Amino acid sequence: MKNFNFYNPTRIFFGKDETDKIGKLSKQYGDNVLLVYGKTAIKRNGLYDRVISRLKEENINVFELPGIDPNPRIESIREGGELCKKHKIDLVLAVGGGSVIDASKGIASAALYDGDPWDFYSYKEESKGALPIASILTLSATGSEMNAGSVVTNFATKEKNGWGSPFTNPKFSILDPVNTFSVSKHQTACGIVDALTHVYEFYFSSDQAYLNDRVCESIMKTVIHFGPIALKDPENFEARSNLMFSSTLALNGLSGFGKTWDGFNHTTEHLLSAYYDIAHADGLAILAPHWMDKILSKKTLNKFYEFAVNVWGVEESEDKMSVAKEGINRVYKFYEAIKMPLKLSDVEIIDPPLDELAKRATKNGTIGRYINLDYSDVLDILNKAL
Amino acid sequence: MKNFNFYNPTRIFFGKDETDKIGKLSKQYGDNVLLVYGKTAIKRNGLYDRVISRLKEENINVFELPGIDPNPRIESIREGGELCKKHKIDLVLAVGGGSVIDASKGIASAALYDGDPWDFYSYKEESKGALPIASILTLSATGSEMNAGSVVTNFATKEKNGWGSPFTNPKFSILDPVNTFSVSKHQTACGIVDALTHVYEFYFSSDQAYLNDRVCESIMKTVIHFGPIALKDPENFEARSNLMFSSTLALNGLSGFGKTWDGFNHTTEHLLSAYYDIAHADGLAILAPHWMDKILSKKTLNKFYEFAVNVWGVEESEDKMSVAKEGINRVYKFYEAIKMPLKLSDVEIIDPPLDELAKRATKNGTIGRYINLDYSDVLDILNKAL
Repeated sequence: MKNFNFYNPTRIFFGKDETDKIGKLSKQYGDNVLLVYGKTAIKRNGLYDRVISRLKEENINVFELPGIDPNPRIESIREGGELCKKHKIDLVLAVGGGSVIDASKGIASAALYDGDPWDFYSYKEESKGALPIASILTLSATGSEMNAGSVVTNFATKEKNGWGSPFTNPKFSILDPVNTFSVSKHQTACGIVDALTHVYEFYFSSDQAYLNDRVCESIMKTVIHFGPIALKDPENFEARSNLMFSSTLALNGLSGFGKTWDGFNHTTEHLLSAYYDIAHADGLAILAPHWMDKILSKKTLNKFYEFAVNVWGVEESEDKMSVAKEGINRVYKFYEAIKMPLKLSDVEIIDPPLDELAKRATKNGTIGRYINLDYSDVLDILNKAL
Repeated sequence: MKNFNFYNPTRIFFGKDETDKIGKLSKQYGDNVLLVYGKTAIKRNGLYDRVISRLKEENINVFELPGIDPNPRIESIREGGELCKKHKIDLVLAVGGGSVIDASKGIASAALYDGDPWDFYSYKEESKGALPIASILTLSATGSEMNAGSVVTNFATKEKNGWGSPFTNPKFSILDPVNTFSVSKHQTACGIVDALTHVYEFYFSSDQAYLNDRVCESIMKTVIHFGPIALKDPENFEARSNLMFSSTLALNGLSGFGKTWDGFNHTTEHLLSAYYDIAHADGLAILAPHWMDKILSKKTLNKFYEFAVNVWGVEESEDKMSVAKEGINRVYKFYEAIKMPLKLSDVEIIDPPLDELAKRATKNGTIGRYINLDYSDVLDILNKAL
């Protein structure tokens, strides 16, 4: 097992009605809260009113930044940072999914910075601090509720960059599965694919880490088991609970200890959605199975065999290659069954600039740390995904 | 899934040679360190010299409390607390296994308390704080390196009590698997049983928590896979690495989320070792299989069936009861293979006061939250374990 550090100081309050703790928990940080959220979902399902009530009961002054986009934009970060400065905000409270939480991390950092927050996301400056951040999660997907990462898009430069600092772990996150009951089928499916792909990025690795492999398989099996149940029965508490904490564990450090992050799927998808503003998980669903097809070889056979048998329940056989291929086939079938796109054309990306995309994906020579892929490999994957 | 809180702020530095970071890490907390350790093991294997060198390089004043017992005693806590006060200690550094780390938590709390630290362990007083605690782990077993718990024995009152406070999580723990290469076969086997039993306490539960079950199975499978390898080849890095982080995860909150702690095995064992000063894991090895035999019934059948199939690889069959029994049989066989005791007589407990023990174990009426066991049930288990 290779060396690693593990540190995750986010407090998790998990379960039904934990939402009601938000007033007292927030008050610990001060009187002025910036409430960051997306479009209308939390107003439709009553969560907005509930949160506001709990905050008001503690005499908290609530300022608002609504309208965070699914691919949060640097403009929102700038605006939120200014609001924090203007209103002397004590806590940035994200109520939403990964986009809203990601944006809140940028905003909390921008609040204590005099320059343009894109400096962080373009790795020009290091953050020296951030306001306290907290979240009430409404979508099981990105894991942002229990990590320091933040992904923000700059459409002006066609860049979608991931960044984080020692100050951007939420102080606490409330994970109330009931808050995900009203998530649409497509958003639920997106969360499923997002969590799975977070795990793929570590599971597919040449680093030996038996315990990590088993933990990754546990997360994937849980997501595969409960995903379809939640899609069929959106108010199934066990399904929503298991999906929720699975997606948290998929990117809180637990899926990654002792392993090297591969990165092909996330890096290439960020490129796609910086060009086309597609849903992150749609891009991941399109890329991952084609990537698996590409990297399956004698060298990776044992890993894909384990994946097929331990995750997808494919029957063991001496013909390991057939088993491995059947494992990948199950990924395609599963994504199809949960109605995720499998082709770029499924999300209306027609005639994309393949050459430009493959060049940008491999701007450092190759992409992917498990199997290093070069320009022609990436071009091949994108062609197959057309 | 039932509601839960999760919070674990201990920093983990895992891997080969991470030990050398101890000087700089300790210095962050101040100039005066109390080094707490056990008998002679760390002097024999060179770890003591290595730690002292790194601390001296940072001009740290090292005070020492050696001689912590395998079942740490309240007398050591009192002595350590006095040393902290006298030398204005800034950091209590445990170099050892669970006993040493547990003792350090008591000592760091006693340092900031004017009364007798047994007040904490007898639940008379709440701790208001503790000095910073850190550890260099030398034995994969208790998980104390990444939790707040501390178990201390008062032989005067025949009590062995577990306690912890919001201040007793180590600030950081160094997990260098090489530091466990010289652990004896019996100590290694004890660690294996300790980690497994920590998982049993949560795995065997009537709470539904699919993800938790899979994670618990991952930890158990890893321990069962690598335990015999480490026993055969004590310097096998992968085996020692996997055992080390498995035993950490077995009691850092991850094995327990969404589940109710059963407690029969630990509570009853604490009673045994308060009477007989046996190794904690010896007691656990003797109790757990007999406890499993006792609680296997129609009600618990599905759980034991899963345990047999998913953890021990017993072949699936429609005769679920046979499969479940074979699972328990594998536990006996495994413990036997790793040379752990299966009977009280194996650890020279002859003619114990069964009535008194069963009465004390069930002083609250019943013991065990998964299956509530009464006086006669406990007497039965103890009789079978004679």
